[in-house]
Amino acid sequence: MDVATVLASQLSSAQIHQKVPILEVVETIPKWQKVADRRRDEILKAIPEEYKVSPHHLAASDRSKLVETCGLLSPRELSIIRLTATQLLRCIHTRIFTAVEVTRAFCKSAAIAHQATNCLAWIMFNEALADAAVLDEYLAIHDKPKGPLHGLPISVKEHIFLAGTPSTSGFVAWADHVSVTDALVVKVLRDAGAVFHVKTTDPQGLMALETESNLYGTTTNPFNAKLTPGGSSGGEAALIAMRGSLLGIGTDIGGSIRVPSAFCGIFGFKPSVARLPHGGLSGAHSGMENIIGVVGPMATCVEDMTLFCRVILETHPWLHEPSLVGLPWTPSLKGKKPLKIGIIYHDGIVCPHPPITRSLHQTAKALQAAGHTLISWDTTLHRTLIDCISKFYFLDGGKEYHDIIAAGEETASPLMKWLLDSAPSRPYSAAETWKLNELRNALQIAYAAQWNASGIDCLLCPANASVASAHGESTYWGYSSLFNILDYSSVVFPVGVVEKSDTWERFPRAGVTAGDGLGAEDERFAGYYGQGTKGPEKYRDAPVSLQLVGRRYREEEVLGMLERILEVFRK
Amino acid sequence: MDVATVLASQLSSAQIHQKVPILEVVETIPKWQKVADRRRDEILKAIPEEYKVSPHHLAASDRSKLVETCGLLSPRELSIIRLTATQLLRCIHTRIFTAVEVTRAFCKSAAIAHQATNCLAWIMFNEALADAAVLDEYLAIHDKPKGPLHGLPISVKEHIFLAGTPSTSGFVAWADHVSVTDALVVKVLRDAGAVFHVKTTDPQGLMALETESNLYGTTTNPFNAKLTPGGSSGGEAALIAMRGSLLGIGTDIGGSIRVPSAFCGIFGFKPSVARLPHGGLSGAHSGMENIIGVVGPMATCVEDMTLFCRVILETHPWLHEPSLVGLPWTPSLKGKKPLKIGIIYHDGIVCPHPPITRSLHQTAKALQAAGHTLISWDTTLHRTLIDCISKFYFLDGGKEYHDIIAAGEETASPLMKWLLDSAPSRPYSAAETWKLNELRNALQIAYAAQWNASGIDCLLCPANASVASAHGESTYWGYSSLFNILDYSSVVFPVGVVEKSDTWERFPRAGVTAGDGLGAEDERFAGYYGQGTKGPEKYRDAPVSLQLVGRRYREEEVLGMLERILEVFRK
Repeated sequence: MDVATVLASQLSSAQIHQKVPILEVVETIPKWQKVADRRRDEILKAIPEEYKVSPHHLAASDRSKLVETCGLLSPRELSIIRLTATQLLRCIHTRIFTAVEVTRAFCKSAAIAHQATNCLAWIMFNEALADAAVLDEYLAIHDKPKGPLHGLPISVKEHIFLAGTPSTSGFVAWADHVSVTDALVVKVLRDAGAVFHVKTTDPQGLMALETESNLYGTTTNPFNAKLTPGGSSGGEAALIAMRGSLLGIGTDIGGSIRVPSAFCGIFGFKPSVARLPHGGLSGAHSGMENIIGVVGPMATCVEDMTLFCRVILETHPWLHEPSLVGLPWTPSLKGKKPLKIGIIYHDGIVCPHPPITRSLHQTAKALQAAGHTLISWDTTLHRTLIDCISKFYFLDGGKEYHDIIAAGEETASPLMKWLLDSAPSRPYSAAETWKLNELRNALQIAYAAQWNASGIDCLLCPANASVASAHGESTYWGYSSLFNILDYSSVVFPVGVVEKSDTWERFPRAGVTAGDGLGAEDERFAGYYGQGTKGPEKYRDAPVSLQLVGRRYREEEVLGMLERILEVFRK
Repeated sequence: MDVATVLASQLSSAQIHQKVPILEVVETIPKWQKVADRRRDEILKAIPEEYKVSPHHLAASDRSKLVETCGLLSPRELSIIRLTATQLLRCIHTRIFTAVEVTRAFCKSAAIAHQATNCLAWIMFNEALADAAVLDEYLAIHDKPKGPLHGLPISVKEHIFLAGTPSTSGFVAWADHVSVTDALVVKVLRDAGAVFHVKTTDPQGLMALETESNLYGTTTNPFNAKLTPGGSSGGEAALIAMRGSLLGIGTDIGGSIRVPSAFCGIFGFKPSVARLPHGGLSGAHSGMENIIGVVGPMATCVEDMTLFCRVILETHPWLHEPSLVGLPWTPSLKGKKPLKIGIIYHDGIVCPHPPITRSLHQTAKALQAAGHTLISWDTTLHRTLIDCISKFYFLDGGKEYHDIIAAGEETASPLMKWLLDSAPSRPYSAAETWKLNELRNALQIAYAAQWNASGIDCLLCPANASVASAHGESTYWGYSSLFNILDYSSVVFPVGVVEKSDTWERFPRAGVTAGDGLGAEDERFAGYYGQGTKGPEKYRDAPVSLQLVGRRYREEEVLGMLERILEVFRK
């Protein structure tokens, strides 16, 4: 298979028209398809021939090691992409590597990642190499780096404004919305010396925990092409998992940083609203504030996420974006006293699949052995919280989404359709939203009271009910969206992979043995996994991740606690 | 005149039915009047006979010195009420005064203030004296105060929940809404040792810069009974100006702390939203978040406002009210370098009255002489900002206000009617409010950019276009509501009183001499003041105050800069 065929195979069947006789093509290709074909062609054409992977490398389902194995990167380039961002910056600033060679290595790995997973929405290799050359010159002349991120390639989720690139939010209608300026987060990172080499795919309208759109097609999971990388920052997750980037900018309003990070086995961090700059994103519902999305880092380690937050906050972005709270980054002062950790095995709505239950038990055991205290967490409030945030997503009855989709002469993607079908059929009045806000605030206070009474430091829980879902099956947001409505600092981290013995038989669903399953959603999710060895086979090679949650605005503390929890694994 | 007559004279004529023949009274007294009569009677009855002022003391228009002159307080009690809260606490904690005698002194002065200005909405003298006795016992037993506010009487605006007292927001329909629990701010202050002796009046629905309601009647200005004390925290301002309290809890969503503080010559501080606890207030539009009100201190000096903020934030209220941002109180680190101050002589909409213009010029001159830099501030953005916040106040087309007024079988107070008449005639949809939010955010960013480019540390400006208005004439909110929509930290402070020479002739309106007045609102306001000596006579004895404004969440810095500005006056 050549690259085009591989990518075509990732399109949903509705999007492929090979069987239409040639002569009729001009008449029958819908407008959206022409726009999508043009965009995908622009992306592919931006990949130099010498970055193209031999077709046989794309045959395997697990493409996660492709950058290492395909032979396109030199040993020196491989040594570059294997570092963390923090290590890499040290090497650039001490002139072990030039910014140009670092950038070239990541252009190559990003190109490979795209061929493997369809994760790129825009390619800026030439601009990135030119920017890197300027940085190298700067270092030579000034004998010091331009800024703390001097020479680091950073990938950017598609809907974040980056001057001169399209920000479409996966909508065909917005395919040619080219940003005039950088989003504040991009500007700040650029000023700090970052180099932008690619933008990454997001799903139609951003409202999916997968990454599929008529515009870009379907992004696949690097570890198993039959699975999704998650979404909406799924392009970022696939790219970083394949080392096409070490640090990326994601966004999250219901799990869109955390779920793809979990599905791809990387680290993803959702800070609280108004901690990091959020200005300059495309998307529907601009100005909606009942629930607000956040920008956050996606990375290969905790240290790099901290770097991302620290560098941004050191520039005092709140002076330019006054909706930010202006809390400077303060390294966690948390001592070494044992942590008291609330653990959620299931939320009373959907029981996680066996690999996640196993990992929770293993992690809990290891944490207890290391002297930490674990307590079972009461999830009584979760259902109401999740119902509440679900209402916030469609306060206009879905009208704006419908309108933008119609304007692009496209259809709703399957997961978007599923969501829109569940939206209220009429728009809310302003006053009706106040009642929802009141409910949300009351629930936040109740959850805080439960937290205070328990004395826990953090919550350990699933990032999703499933490891990387099969395409189209990411239909439960509760484990991630809960911490959007609570606005708690939450981070996901990898703990392993699916094992052959991860069966329902070994890790039975909550309540099922007692004859009182959790309900219809739980039944559906159990069915996705299947009995016996079906699950381990279906989800083969998928990473298993967990989520660690701290209070609102306790970003430093949560990352500090995660470091301590990871220490337990290292022992 | 006896007290009842004095209070009756403060009712608007529509509320007085003396001429109705006795036999028909039972039939014709409207329900709201009965409720109001009962409530006012409850308040008056809670004043012990020995706290009642001789009628001749209430004859003068300036009643501001009544507590000193009426002879009800002993010299020792007078020495108590003359202190600042900070000084007083030192005296209680070192046992120079007992909490009981301090509380009794303030019960007396509050009772006198009420007879002079109709500023109280609820009286808790007995409970306060009992609480104080418990505190005295605590100090005797433990040899240390219960908390940093041990024994300090604090007054509370009526609509703030205080267990066992009504919170009506000035609505007849809510006359018997008795709070079951304390608002968080009350709880925190109570735990710190504060004693609550009174609740203070607010206007019908809280949405007025005066303090008039069918339920409580009209609160008057201590310095001139023909003038308003401002609103909506007008009861607080009148009370504190008369030393019926040294520290009070106000609220502000358009000027409701700052305008009454300015009109009564005290200090009033509006922090940014989510800095101080805001949970537990009655009011319409609960859950509306496009613009949010704040709780803040009203006091007789800067130090006491700092005390208020510091004590509250030291309890980490964000653990219980998660909507708070969790910024601890950090004493301003601002050095002694000269300040760069933007000055607003007028906002291009309504030119301030002569006493304010004079005070701005005098203050500017003194600041320049002390080495500070003053620059003229461009107010181009103000009109759009003020129009935007005006829309936020009535996103439901005024429906909830109309409904609550109807439920109480009362009529809208004149200023409420004026506002409701200006409200949009139909409710906004949720999606329509998003567009307004977008506009607000864009304006906030533009204002921040202007601030950044100018390099100013703070803004010095009028608190209102007028000194204390005549009743019914507080119809321009722009100088205060601007800093609600921007969410900047703002404080008002007294700088003098109206002088005989404060005439339009000496301090002409902006643009008027050139034949291009600022517009209809400006014309109306100029007319209020009148030509020649009419203004100085009408506003005789009224305090003159100014406003100092800092960036969002820079509460400590603003209070620190105010201290420096006040130093200039002391020299």
